[in-house]
Amino acid sequence: MDDAGQIQTPRAVAAKSLRTPTTVSPQLQRSISTMAAQAAAGGGGLPLGWRPGSADEWTALIAQVDAQALALVPALAAMFPHRVELMQVAGVTVRQIVPASLDPAKAGRVLLNFHGGGYVLNGGEASTGEAVLGAHYSRMTVVSVDYRMPPEHPFPAAVDDAVAVWRALAAERPAGAIGVFGTSAGGGLTLALALKLKELGLELPGALATGTPWTDLTGASDSYQVNAGVDGVFSSFDGMAGGMAALYAGDAGVTHPLVSPIYGDFAGFPPTIFTTGTRDLLLSDTVRAYRAMRAAGVTARLEVHEAMSHAEYIYAFDSPESAVVFRDIAAFFDEHLKG
Amino acid sequence: MDDAGQIQTPRAVAAKSLRTPTTVSPQLQRSISTMAAQAAAGGGGLPLGWRPGSADEWTALIAQVDAQALALVPALAAMFPHRVELMQVAGVTVRQIVPASLDPAKAGRVLLNFHGGGYVLNGGEASTGEAVLGAHYSRMTVVSVDYRMPPEHPFPAAVDDAVAVWRALAAERPAGAIGVFGTSAGGGLTLALALKLKELGLELPGALATGTPWTDLTGASDSYQVNAGVDGVFSSFDGMAGGMAALYAGDAGVTHPLVSPIYGDFAGFPPTIFTTGTRDLLLSDTVRAYRAMRAAGVTARLEVHEAMSHAEYIYAFDSPESAVVFRDIAAFFDEHLKG
Repeated sequence: MDDAGQIQTPRAVAAKSLRTPTTVSPQLQRSISTMAAQAAAGGGGLPLGWRPGSADEWTALIAQVDAQALALVPALAAMFPHRVELMQVAGVTVRQIVPASLDPAKAGRVLLNFHGGGYVLNGGEASTGEAVLGAHYSRMTVVSVDYRMPPEHPFPAAVDDAVAVWRALAAERPAGAIGVFGTSAGGGLTLALALKLKELGLELPGALATGTPWTDLTGASDSYQVNAGVDGVFSSFDGMAGGMAALYAGDAGVTHPLVSPIYGDFAGFPPTIFTTGTRDLLLSDTVRAYRAMRAAGVTARLEVHEAMSHAEYIYAFDSPESAVVFRDIAAFFDEHLKG
Repeated sequence: MDDAGQIQTPRAVAAKSLRTPTTVSPQLQRSISTMAAQAAAGGGGLPLGWRPGSADEWTALIAQVDAQALALVPALAAMFPHRVELMQVAGVTVRQIVPASLDPAKAGRVLLNFHGGGYVLNGGEASTGEAVLGAHYSRMTVVSVDYRMPPEHPFPAAVDDAVAVWRALAAERPAGAIGVFGTSAGGGLTLALALKLKELGLELPGALATGTPWTDLTGASDSYQVNAGVDGVFSSFDGMAGGMAALYAGDAGVTHPLVSPIYGDFAGFPPTIFTTGTRDLLLSDTVRAYRAMRAAGVTARLEVHEAMSHAEYIYAFDSPESAVVFRDIAAFFDEHLKG
């Protein structure tokens, strides 16, 4: 027992060997098996046991990981035709994704996307994977924000860039006609943007879609324990993820509500859809934010997918499960965006 | 690779020691820690490593486990005042729970509850725990069905009893004024009842609430692997749970859609709310049924709770998380029941 008389017995869980489940599509089975094979060979995913010790080491690592993300781009473009327009909006680099599936009836609406990567990875050309999928399935234009990141630009640079692009988009159309979405750090930044807009007294987006959002950079969530080693994409908070959290938060600290939105107040938020999977290391980060939003009286939906790891719906983009994820998000935007 | 060329590498997960999470209420922390302490002492939960080898051994085990469930009854009654009316409906033993909180404005509505316990346990006086909680929070009368169970009465006795009580209730009020709910096997039976009513061409309930439902008795769900040893209430499918599945299914087999509703067709189902937790051994049974229902075009909600084990919202009935579970269910019935 601790000082408060609380029983604090840890629960011992034996080592296990997880079969590839038969309860998902062949495409998702292949993704799960491939990641398991890479892990068994000592590779795959992020180099989690280690974290860079200097800005130069971070920069070298970032280049290496971003190259992996870039390798997906041709396959994505073949399956989801689109054009990319590189531009500056309010001084921020963005890539506007115009899908071949564009629906002219939705021309009054636009989506804003923030890429994932722990606020450190997937900048530049590597930033558009989820934006392409979101544009294709929603049949809307997506503005993908290449926000500034550490080591050069820790918090609040990313939030400042998000607000700057938001102001520009909201100057041209009703705020309610804009949907914001993102995965992982991009899901956290989606929530942080809305918190910041509340703080500034600005109008909020019409709806949010936050996928396996990084809402608690302290690492307190229970699924960091339960799904450690289970998640094929993001297998542990220890090591590099904790390093990215510290690098991003900087002097503000990881409990700042714009760094870890779970410590913010979601009252008055627009309708929000959450997506996660049963193997997701951030299952609890997602569930906790969903519950906090429901407790605050916000219209919210929670979508969980069988055996899916963190953000796997982006990487396994050929799976029917990925299509369900993005169709649910598209339908949610269709239902809640105005204009 | 297997014959189809599929990579089938299992994923190795190291042994771990799970801390009691700080991300849940003190009451739920106490529940989690207490179960961990019991497990560390070699007790607690079901005797999972072993399964009875004869009908007499089953009967002895059932008496032992039911006595544990009965021990909760006085504390539940003190916290959630109600009266119990024991009666026969269509030849089936039921206990009608009338809560002190009864709302006369909802007198035209009634809820039907099926207790959990793997279709084997928690019969008789031990069957009313969830019914009491449901009655209190919904402020409606709950008819708790003491359906027949193995070893004497395998499938389809439970489904037959459910249909018999349903017919009696639906003869006295519109079908849409009746809500059906249940947890674990009771959640599975809730879905099986609706499948059977479809088959019979009868009207369906106004809404369903299925908590951590046992939807796949084959044990295929991924969370049987991932949350094995993690769930404090129901820590493994192997051993007794698999034994209960075989004992219940009997000659029909575990893939019969009225035994394992995941193999049924949910098209045309009434609005359904699903409840589970991130440590739930049946997280995947729940998520898969929710996804199948969404794919069939049914109005459905999924509620997941941080660090909660299988059906823990019944046992940790003093926790705020348990109140949220039953308030969400009550609100769902308020929204969707007619009359």
